[in-house]
Amino acid sequence: MPSVSAPRRTSRPPVEAKAGIPVAEAAVPVPRRALHKGQQTKATIVEAALNLATHIGLEGLSIGALAELTGMSKSGVFAHFGSREELQISVVHEYHDRFEQEVFYPALQASRGVARLRALFDNWMKRTSIELDSGCIYISGAVEFDDRTGPVRDALTASVQTWHAAMRRTIVQCRECGDLRADVDENQLLFEIHGLILALHYEARFLRNEGSMQRAIDGFESILARYARPA
Amino acid sequence: MPSVSAPRRTSRPPVEAKAGIPVAEAAVPVPRRALHKGQQTKATIVEAALNLATHIGLEGLSIGALAELTGMSKSGVFAHFGSREELQISVVHEYHDRFEQEVFYPALQASRGVARLRALFDNWMKRTSIELDSGCIYISGAVEFDDRTGPVRDALTASVQTWHAAMRRTIVQCRECGDLRADVDENQLLFEIHGLILALHYEARFLRNEGSMQRAIDGFESILARYARPA
Repeated sequence: MPSVSAPRRTSRPPVEAKAGIPVAEAAVPVPRRALHKGQQTKATIVEAALNLATHIGLEGLSIGALAELTGMSKSGVFAHFGSREELQISVVHEYHDRFEQEVFYPALQASRGVARLRALFDNWMKRTSIELDSGCIYISGAVEFDDRTGPVRDALTASVQTWHAAMRRTIVQCRECGDLRADVDENQLLFEIHGLILALHYEARFLRNEGSMQRAIDGFESILARYARPA
Repeated sequence: MPSVSAPRRTSRPPVEAKAGIPVAEAAVPVPRRALHKGQQTKATIVEAALNLATHIGLEGLSIGALAELTGMSKSGVFAHFGSREELQISVVHEYHDRFEQEVFYPALQASRGVARLRALFDNWMKRTSIELDSGCIYISGAVEFDDRTGPVRDALTASVQTWHAAMRRTIVQCRECGDLRADVDENQLLFEIHGLILALHYEARFLRNEGSMQRAIDGFESILARYARPA
């Protein structure tokens, strides 16, 4: 199964680990269990950091704030990340993984072509609608890091570009299988769809305009109609 | 001449004042001249604050930073604004006035209907393209204040909503004069156009994708084509 692809990953525990010590771990020697506990702790910190970052932005993160949130000592948190920057990058990778799990993978159940493009948009919309109450680090991060250089910006743009590349591949498949016109430019179509998501976030979350969700859906449908292969 | 309308305004000097003491002021008594000098100083601070805010955001502003930038004492800057919040609001109003001058008023030269809507979009694009190098407080401010309440957020949303209302009026005129279909929803059309501007800002400024400007222009043209009255 193709992946949105994960850029540089933080060391994360297996999913089961989040539900406690997995059965497979029952007989592992102490050293591995210790390592595993360390991974669990790191995952707990990243989870708290991601939750905080969606509300106040990646730049709002600090080792001190995370220590307070997780009830750990600053040195305890520091031991897992070494720097605020590494903590921010771990949050970007965690967000990337969740985006992949919630938006990308479920859409692969839909058949290639417009069905899958529609599934990707629907899942993206679902995620955006949840984030209307908190925030999206792809959007707040763009404002925080658009003027800067460095590894956090690089991790953030790599994550967004990876997602956009997956959208482009899906649009190209729509063209190849004849669902969309042969002259459809995947960059143009992605740009217009991305605009709908950004307008939804801006108008619903900041301006608090009623009906923004339906406008995004209607906009997507009319984009598809515009680029549909003539009958 | 209709205006985008100015929400609560900061006291600003007449435009000529920026070029020194205007001829009309030559014989004014000392008290008014004193007041006028105060207005000039305030305008200088607001100008420096706006320039700073487009780069680091409204939340990056501080009385201290402005004192440093303008070579004034903190108490000198404080005397003009009284609070950081009032300084931020003055910046929002200054930005509003400039947006009105650069984007709205020049478009009124175009005749009602699609010609004016096109002029508004062209001017909006011109302004956005300039802001790709600095930033736009309508976009960074949305991320900074979407979770908050208070007078700065209120000033920012009032300014954006006023601009959006002017766009809606222009779209309604397009419908009324028959340039666009009778069933065109001005909120839907504005949402889609706003999305193009947001996508341009995001993809050109943050992702640094080539060709974003042309994509926004092409997107606008195909929106117009989609909503044009059938021949």
